Amino acid sequence: MTKHFGNASVRFTNPPSIISTAAIVGPKEGEGPLAKYFDKISADTLFNKDTWEQAESELMRQTIELAIQKAGLTTKDINYIFAGDLLNQNSGSVYGARSLGRPFFGLFGACSAIGMAMALGAMLIDGGFADNVVANASSHFCGAEKTFRFPLELGTQRSPTASWTVTGDGAVLLSSKGEGPFVTAATTGAIVDLDQKDVNHMGAAMAPAAAEVIKAHFDDLGLPHDYYDVIATGDLGIYGKKLTEQLLQDSGFNFCDRLTDCGILIFDKERQDTHAGGSGCGCSASVFAGYFMKKLHSGEINKMLLVPTGALHSVVTIQQGETIPGIAHAVAIERNM
Amino acid sequence: MTKHFGNASVRFTNPPSIISTAAIVGPKEGEGPLAKYFDKISADTLFNKDTWEQAESELMRQTIELAIQKAGLTTKDINYIFAGDLLNQNSGSVYGARSLGRPFFGLFGACSAIGMAMALGAMLIDGGFADNVVANASSHFCGAEKTFRFPLELGTQRSPTASWTVTGDGAVLLSSKGEGPFVTAATTGAIVDLDQKDVNHMGAAMAPAAAEVIKAHFDDLGLPHDYYDVIATGDLGIYGKKLTEQLLQDSGFNFCDRLTDCGILIFDKERQDTHAGGSGCGCSASVFAGYFMKKLHSGEINKMLLVPTGALHSVVTIQQGETIPGIAHAVAIERNM
Repeated sequence: MTKHFGNASVRFTNPPSIISTAAIVGPKEGEGPLAKYFDKISADTLFNKDTWEQAESELMRQTIELAIQKAGLTTKDINYIFAGDLLNQNSGSVYGARSLGRPFFGLFGACSAIGMAMALGAMLIDGGFADNVVANASSHFCGAEKTFRFPLELGTQRSPTASWTVTGDGAVLLSSKGEGPFVTAATTGAIVDLDQKDVNHMGAAMAPAAAEVIKAHFDDLGLPHDYYDVIATGDLGIYGKKLTEQLLQDSGFNFCDRLTDCGILIFDKERQDTHAGGSGCGCSASVFAGYFMKKLHSGEINKMLLVPTGALHSVVTIQQGETIPGIAHAVAIERNM
Repeated sequence: MTKHFGNASVRFTNPPSIISTAAIVGPKEGEGPLAKYFDKISADTLFNKDTWEQAESELMRQTIELAIQKAGLTTKDINYIFAGDLLNQNSGSVYGARSLGRPFFGLFGACSAIGMAMALGAMLIDGGFADNVVANASSHFCGAEKTFRFPLELGTQRSPTASWTVTGDGAVLLSSKGEGPFVTAATTGAIVDLDQKDVNHMGAAMAPAAAEVIKAHFDDLGLPHDYYDVIATGDLGIYGKKLTEQLLQDSGFNFCDRLTDCGILIFDKERQDTHAGGSGCGCSASVFAGYFMKKLHSGEINKMLLVPTGALHSVVTIQQGETIPGIAHAVAIERNM
């Protein structure tokens, strides 16, 4: 039976079930509109560690262990961990996964990481190579500021189009057995770069990639435009989402009433002073693992397309005058197979 | 039919064929003992670009395009590109893949990248999700020195156990059709950290991970110890290889006459002053894509286990007093299915 379609899409013949998720966030995220959907809100941004980097690794380890525990499994039951983050050399994920002792694939797709991880994890399970896979993505506001922007101590004023990196982690446990929701299909994005150079406007860099992968998903799989109840992009933020809507409308996709964005949902722009919205690998990961999974379980959502988006630049490439390459991956999650 | 075995191993039911490889290296690698096995030796370390980072991306793009061309395919025939490198935020791979326009998975496994890429690529093909996948890994001596060590201009003296990052790229084109050699099995490593802290002795940090994954591969798949003609580790170098041999012998594996290391093979230690040997994602990738593939085609080697190894630290974690986590992945390549 054919499993791959069109340019970049796959449909699973035995769709892996999401048997458990966990979402742990920091204090600011815990003051936002989605607070009640997260498993745990840490009052301590350092997660009882000495550095921001160690804090992110601790957050990552705790979240994965919680997801495994919620499923009634132990770490030994996990065949593979796929994990991504924003730090140099994926050190958030590497040091977090170190004590877990399971086969490990480090991913880099910037804030699209949870999409890559879920798509690859689902392919390994449907392909017969695994029974249980953890897909994970994490970010930490302070670690990201240090890596990409300014020392926090400077108190630098933020651009209106800048986003606020989420301190959070979302872990998704995929399994060959289970009652759903199911990962039914996925579309993997190519790198799209329309010469955007403003690192304080990453929504603009990612919007073309988001629009491209959404269009490819519908076209490849021949889906009607009203197929999904919700299409949730990763962390385009307010301005990036507007650009994506425009690009989709220009291509004849008029489902913008169903389009939302994890970066917009996680913070209250006015009250929390987060400008364009939340971002970071942990943004779409924690919003999906916390908020959307509860909506899927309750039946409020039956079918959704999660589209985590990433801005694939580094400080060095930007200093050398390079543009910001964008990427996005689409993962379909449905209550029923 | 069961495809996964033991802790972390898979055996392919329709083993993907390696229909083409390409290896491009820099001038120093072109003066080494494997010179005649590479497709192209660039006399220009900058690959006609302005920065080391751009040079690595250009090297990566050229190598992938050459592998596709050698297979008589076009870029459009490629379903997925898996690629890893050492630079912050995988920028070598990201900017190199940008113009290729194909679905892209960025990987971070330090110098184990080509192992991850080949294992995942083979799983996607055997699982029915792809016909053609490019697995790629690159590194550049100057970019790596800048990222991890000292400015080249300082002319810093190197420790005797330090390795020399290879300027090179290896691209492996896997396909659902073809005459072989075939990727027949793979074992994915967990992170192993025995508290090694010396960034000038990465062989020591990676040796335990290499030994663990080799043992797991033989145990999981129940293979006799003389199954492979060659077991080629990634870039342990002279000292790391000795440690791995010792760890394997201590566990009752006495096949050290079959054990070699890509980092040892690529340079002439005495003549080229490379101390422990070559390292970097491009080391095992270019040595496999160039040297070993020719030995497999000629029949000099019938069965080999490629075990790329990675040291998963970052400058920040080391400065914070962290140890160096190691990882290794084993990929079996055989002339016949």
